[in-house]
Amino acid sequence: MQTARREPMSETREFAWQRLHEFCVEVFRRLEVPEADARLAADVLSAADRRGVDSHGVARLRTYVDLLSVGRINPRPTVRIVRETASTATVDGDNGLGLVVGPKANQIAMDKAQQVGTGWVAVCHTNHFGIGGYYVLKAIERDMIGWSMTNTTRAVAPFGGAERMLGTNPLAVGVPAGEEPPIVLDMSTCTVPYGKIEMAVRRGESIPLGWAIDEEGRPTTDPSAMIHGGALLPLGSDPEGSGHKGYGLAVAVDVLSAVLSGANWGPFAPPFALRQADPPRKVGKGIGHFFGAMRVDAFRDLDEFKSHVDDFVRTLRATRPASGFEAVLVPGDPEHRAERERAAHGVPLLPAVIDDLHEISRQTGVPLG
Amino acid sequence: MQTARREPMSETREFAWQRLHEFCVEVFRRLEVPEADARLAADVLSAADRRGVDSHGVARLRTYVDLLSVGRINPRPTVRIVRETASTATVDGDNGLGLVVGPKANQIAMDKAQQVGTGWVAVCHTNHFGIGGYYVLKAIERDMIGWSMTNTTRAVAPFGGAERMLGTNPLAVGVPAGEEPPIVLDMSTCTVPYGKIEMAVRRGESIPLGWAIDEEGRPTTDPSAMIHGGALLPLGSDPEGSGHKGYGLAVAVDVLSAVLSGANWGPFAPPFALRQADPPRKVGKGIGHFFGAMRVDAFRDLDEFKSHVDDFVRTLRATRPASGFEAVLVPGDPEHRAERERAAHGVPLLPAVIDDLHEISRQTGVPLG
Repeated sequence: MQTARREPMSETREFAWQRLHEFCVEVFRRLEVPEADARLAADVLSAADRRGVDSHGVARLRTYVDLLSVGRINPRPTVRIVRETASTATVDGDNGLGLVVGPKANQIAMDKAQQVGTGWVAVCHTNHFGIGGYYVLKAIERDMIGWSMTNTTRAVAPFGGAERMLGTNPLAVGVPAGEEPPIVLDMSTCTVPYGKIEMAVRRGESIPLGWAIDEEGRPTTDPSAMIHGGALLPLGSDPEGSGHKGYGLAVAVDVLSAVLSGANWGPFAPPFALRQADPPRKVGKGIGHFFGAMRVDAFRDLDEFKSHVDDFVRTLRATRPASGFEAVLVPGDPEHRAERERAAHGVPLLPAVIDDLHEISRQTGVPLG
Repeated sequence: MQTARREPMSETREFAWQRLHEFCVEVFRRLEVPEADARLAADVLSAADRRGVDSHGVARLRTYVDLLSVGRINPRPTVRIVRETASTATVDGDNGLGLVVGPKANQIAMDKAQQVGTGWVAVCHTNHFGIGGYYVLKAIERDMIGWSMTNTTRAVAPFGGAERMLGTNPLAVGVPAGEEPPIVLDMSTCTVPYGKIEMAVRRGESIPLGWAIDEEGRPTTDPSAMIHGGALLPLGSDPEGSGHKGYGLAVAVDVLSAVLSGANWGPFAPPFALRQADPPRKVGKGIGHFFGAMRVDAFRDLDEFKSHVDDFVRTLRATRPASGFEAVLVPGDPEHRAERERAAHGVPLLPAVIDDLHEISRQTGVPLG
């Protein structure tokens, strides 16, 4: 349900996703990432581009390239299990790309689910892993319910707080359907992502109350007040909106991703950017992810389950719409629609993103094609 | 973080929780519930009374008594596993009290976690299970991270919809700490529970925009417009507040609790009240729950984990408060505080609740003591 993250379509130019994918593969290879890993990383970025989550696709390639170029991310990590039981594993990502460590850890979760019904993997010593939706779609392909979470650099105030102490800490859950597209919930646990604040600044617009606070912790409609020392608000925003619930979800995601795995939790998660200062304390290794996979047929006959999911999805879609809405959607519908549109018409990129890709092309010698 | 559910303290009378607990045990026994099950059910209600979640304690005894009295709930269920793997089970609750079926299913999840690291149990053919927090506290006692969810009668509109299609679908996660109290997130996935709307009606007050819609799906500040054909809104409320996220969470809870177990999902969950009409379709058996337990030491050294949880909790509490707030709390703090207060001073009950208990006492012949 990430319509909110889409950039406006004006001024954009379309690129076939395959072309962007191939470009990413070659760029990662040029930066010493082994070919199989480069393909994995490109797959994750590509999933975002194809599904309309523009903030998490090639628009982020610049940052991955920066961090690899200066040696802040290990291009050839040895991803290893440091502890395990039949249904669990703790994985050390050896400071690799989250785009590589994430898919490998998720694979471990799915393989364990194949054996004992469910698999759960906590990962430390890793980096930004792309969109959470990618991972749960992999589980769906195997007729499993998938889970993914990650903690991220601090940007969000705890409920009642005036400082950034938690990341946007996204959470994804994916459910296989039969004839309908799968249900894919992929959400950050704050009200809106940082990108929406930046966009308001660029456009000279104000933001609604409930999105952010200024540096004194006061509700603000000025997006630059958030950027200069303020913070994002958790889902639910304020006492009337039950902001303590979004805060609680963010804490749960942080515990599962980072405290359970041995990564840096809360305000100490390292930044995903070259020029951002390191946190004041180190309480673990890198950031953390958490993956889960549950075999549907461990609980219920698979066909029966899928036909009930189809029925549930159709029942929800048949809800009488509220005034101002055209229809009731199901989590994952906007991304599914984007995927069909972009398969036909290409991925629309903003001029600034295209400039970035040309710059990366010059820097690495990989033609944009 | 359920401060919101607390009733005002005026007009109340205090009762020792032990006295209320014993009363519940005897009432359930008088209604043909076997003694061990009656104790289990009373434990769950008592947990709500002790932790300040007044809406879910003895205030609900009336409804359980009603449903048992007319034979709508089976007092002597045979709770059985209908499918299982090493880390999972699907349980049929035989239409028993959720307060009995829930603890037994949760026990199965914890026992599986003891064996293979984690345990996950989906339950069908069950009824209202009390507070989600009770179940995760049981996992915490065993040094596990606990999960609990349940679907409930429809009350909430999907994002963009004008009709009640989903329950308040609560979700709880509990995390053991060392010296600090455990982290206990226990939240419904809608902005506010039905009880807050009822309270506004009783007091003749309006409600904030974002809590509810009227029967046309229009945002309303009139609580009776919600009650008469309107609906509650999911966490996040509207497009600006990212209400699609709360909606997505409610769908995920419904899938895990009801679709996965074979219970009635979405708008077809049966009501928890005598005089409410049955849903138009039957798509499964009873309502559904979902429980999870994860052994902490399956992922990380237990003492190390607990000391990091303590550190995380203290770090969050040390956040500079926003204007209008005294301090930043951690999920579970308000309930923990209530538990200490009520252990010392008793459980404050409203006159209407005390009247109900006297009426139940007359009906069953059990003295209130």
